[in-house]
Amino acid sequence: MKKILTALCILLTIGGNAQQEEDKAILEKIYKNALVNGKSYEWLDYLSNQIGGRLSGSLNAQKAVEWGEKELKALGLDRVWLQPVMVPKWTRGVTEIAYIETEPGKTTSFPICALGGSVPTPIGGLKAEIIEVKGLEELATLGKEKIAGKVVFYNRPMQADLIQTFEAYGGCVDQRYAGAAEAGKYGAVGVIVRSMNLRLDDYPHTGSMSYGDLKDTQKIPAAAISTNGAELLSTLLALNKKAKFHLNMNCRTWKDVQSYNVIGEIKGSEYPNEYMVVGGHLDSWDLGDGSHDDGAGIVQSMEVLRLFKEIGYKPKRSIRVVMFMNEENGLRGGKKYAKVAKQKGENHVFALESDAGGFTPRGFSFDCNDATFTQVESWKPLFEPYLIHYFAKGGSGADIGPLKKEGITLAGLRPDSQRYFDYHHAKNDTFDAVNKRELELGAATMTSLMYLFDKYGTK
Amino acid sequence: MKKILTALCILLTIGGNAQQEEDKAILEKIYKNALVNGKSYEWLDYLSNQIGGRLSGSLNAQKAVEWGEKELKALGLDRVWLQPVMVPKWTRGVTEIAYIETEPGKTTSFPICALGGSVPTPIGGLKAEIIEVKGLEELATLGKEKIAGKVVFYNRPMQADLIQTFEAYGGCVDQRYAGAAEAGKYGAVGVIVRSMNLRLDDYPHTGSMSYGDLKDTQKIPAAAISTNGAELLSTLLALNKKAKFHLNMNCRTWKDVQSYNVIGEIKGSEYPNEYMVVGGHLDSWDLGDGSHDDGAGIVQSMEVLRLFKEIGYKPKRSIRVVMFMNEENGLRGGKKYAKVAKQKGENHVFALESDAGGFTPRGFSFDCNDATFTQVESWKPLFEPYLIHYFAKGGSGADIGPLKKEGITLAGLRPDSQRYFDYHHAKNDTFDAVNKRELELGAATMTSLMYLFDKYGTK
Repeated sequence: MKKILTALCILLTIGGNAQQEEDKAILEKIYKNALVNGKSYEWLDYLSNQIGGRLSGSLNAQKAVEWGEKELKALGLDRVWLQPVMVPKWTRGVTEIAYIETEPGKTTSFPICALGGSVPTPIGGLKAEIIEVKGLEELATLGKEKIAGKVVFYNRPMQADLIQTFEAYGGCVDQRYAGAAEAGKYGAVGVIVRSMNLRLDDYPHTGSMSYGDLKDTQKIPAAAISTNGAELLSTLLALNKKAKFHLNMNCRTWKDVQSYNVIGEIKGSEYPNEYMVVGGHLDSWDLGDGSHDDGAGIVQSMEVLRLFKEIGYKPKRSIRVVMFMNEENGLRGGKKYAKVAKQKGENHVFALESDAGGFTPRGFSFDCNDATFTQVESWKPLFEPYLIHYFAKGGSGADIGPLKKEGITLAGLRPDSQRYFDYHHAKNDTFDAVNKRELELGAATMTSLMYLFDKYGTK
Repeated sequence: MKKILTALCILLTIGGNAQQEEDKAILEKIYKNALVNGKSYEWLDYLSNQIGGRLSGSLNAQKAVEWGEKELKALGLDRVWLQPVMVPKWTRGVTEIAYIETEPGKTTSFPICALGGSVPTPIGGLKAEIIEVKGLEELATLGKEKIAGKVVFYNRPMQADLIQTFEAYGGCVDQRYAGAAEAGKYGAVGVIVRSMNLRLDDYPHTGSMSYGDLKDTQKIPAAAISTNGAELLSTLLALNKKAKFHLNMNCRTWKDVQSYNVIGEIKGSEYPNEYMVVGGHLDSWDLGDGSHDDGAGIVQSMEVLRLFKEIGYKPKRSIRVVMFMNEENGLRGGKKYAKVAKQKGENHVFALESDAGGFTPRGFSFDCNDATFTQVESWKPLFEPYLIHYFAKGGSGADIGPLKKEGITLAGLRPDSQRYFDYHHAKNDTFDAVNKRELELGAATMTSLMYLFDKYGTK
């Protein structure tokens, strides 16, 4: 018996080693192909420079849908289709104007932009005193008496000493998301929010906001100001608290419009009814061309399926690339995809999202059970030659979040985050800010993880 | 006895844990200070934008020496001095010109730059057929018959599928360094080398070269061509092998001139006769302002000593920051420093160099014995919160190389290398290509390693 067990152990070890060698060889193929013959950069060039910014409900978003469908069809997948979803439509209108009048006739202008979903100012703009706060708590302590009739200026910067910049973002973004809803309760007439950017520069960064349960009459216009602008405004206010702030925006929310998630599928050879999703979001904000957020995630996800075909790997499970629509201001695409999957009883076992920029990949964050995480950790040596070292439990991605249920593993690509917020939601999120190799390494890293999960399943 | 041993073990463990907690706290202070109150970015701004490119022997190099001395003095170190070193002086002259004449009167121009140390063309330029090769081996197979009287065009690209770009550089740079020496032997009249750049763009990248033991009469002018230029030239040559190539450069080598390494020291409190060096090189090529190569390394090294003072850490060993002169085209500074150290019998135990760009730090490479490397590996958990994961045996840095002897540990900072060769030795190596946080994280990582080696010594 003991001899049999020993023999079995040896066989299993040999088998394990053979598997490991095979996996190593496959990863080598994947990385080599991505770096030498990759398509992701060329795709991103088209999406960014020929289509450009593609806010939900815009003509560009529709162009992006058509482009995505065409390119997925060109990959020769088993099935490509559009999944209808109604999305919000908000337009920025003419370029926003903001300045402060420190004494009659003496004005200083600031680079600002409306937050997505903001109401406009009254026609001709508004003019009011402006009061600086460091956040929602300070606002609450000031109360109606000190806030009513004024513009509220949220100026708590992102925390520089946090190593992962997404944490610093998480610690600040309440000002942008809920700032207007809270200030509106106290009778403020407008809101200016310091841009979510660790760097001092002149780009205002837009982003989503919510009025919560405010009545229409309480909704006030909200704009982001560049970090340099915020510093200057703060200095001027320290000198003259009575200075008048002028704000003019004519953004507008329209009726919801028809749009689509774009989906492509390779049917699984062994378990066609188990689904694995890889995706990013096709929509972007309107200021830049959305190269990092999230053109990168879109083209990397496309590249996963292209690389599988290119290296001749036939997945056991059904693999879907999903270009989600409307992540930025509604998440309608992600919700719709999950809803339809549930209605159809499709068994989703794994989903991976890339929505943190096209920078050098460092690893992944996993929302999964302990057994699956242990399995992931056993794959670490496979990734070492590619300098992929970060495997942590944590969040995944906004679009795949609605798929969450017992038994599914969700994962998010984690690229280096130091420069992400220099570009996030701003005019400078453009193609030239993406490095070809960094983008390709991300795609190869995603493909490798998809391969391993397809081969070994989740636990 | 057993009880005593157990008690001892417990005490050692408690002691070990206390040490670990102290180290953890010190690293936290270092990173926080570097990211919140760091000086490296401000220093780099001055060095790059107020001084600029600082080729050995130039006026700017002298300005950089004076600036370095002034700033080190301002840090309140125990001692700051200039170490004299004679350096080569080579000047580029007027902007180089290169074009090909595919038929009489029909010309196409290319972005080129002379390699550092090249001889000029004859006055008025040279004109010859040009022959493309993939490297020195192919050149040798062609021999004198096919090479004599022609310009040789080295066009082997950097290998895209190597993950660490320095490996790809190492596999190509023989064309630049030895290309003219080899082609000169076969009677070539000039050399054009594809730029050491993985990206396709329009910047020619200069760099050092050697004529080996060629006689003066055999020395031929050598220039780099941009990667896009190389692709175009190759295409045009495929169409017409008889096309005439024109090259005009008036670079010049002068007599050696006086320059300096800039050195600052904090005297060790326990072992003042053990020296630890941290440094980079103060000189740069002349095309850009040398922000990544190696302004970053200079200001990060200065920051190490500033951070020690800032957090109140008094090193046990004598810590020196060394701004080496003339790494790029002679290594005279590094050689001189080592020579003087040897003459004075100074016991150098550790040296760290940063000369791979101011990008997100990933870790270090070590040239050391096994015991020291084991010690380094025991420090890994301390670096994990800062996403520093790469600890490998290998090279260190060119300037500290001459210090190598039995018992010394040499180390090199290893930042993310994907974008380094986009800027290396080219016009676009400028301040705006450096991210403040990435630079600061590098400085903090270097400071942390210096702290640990100072505290625990080498093995």
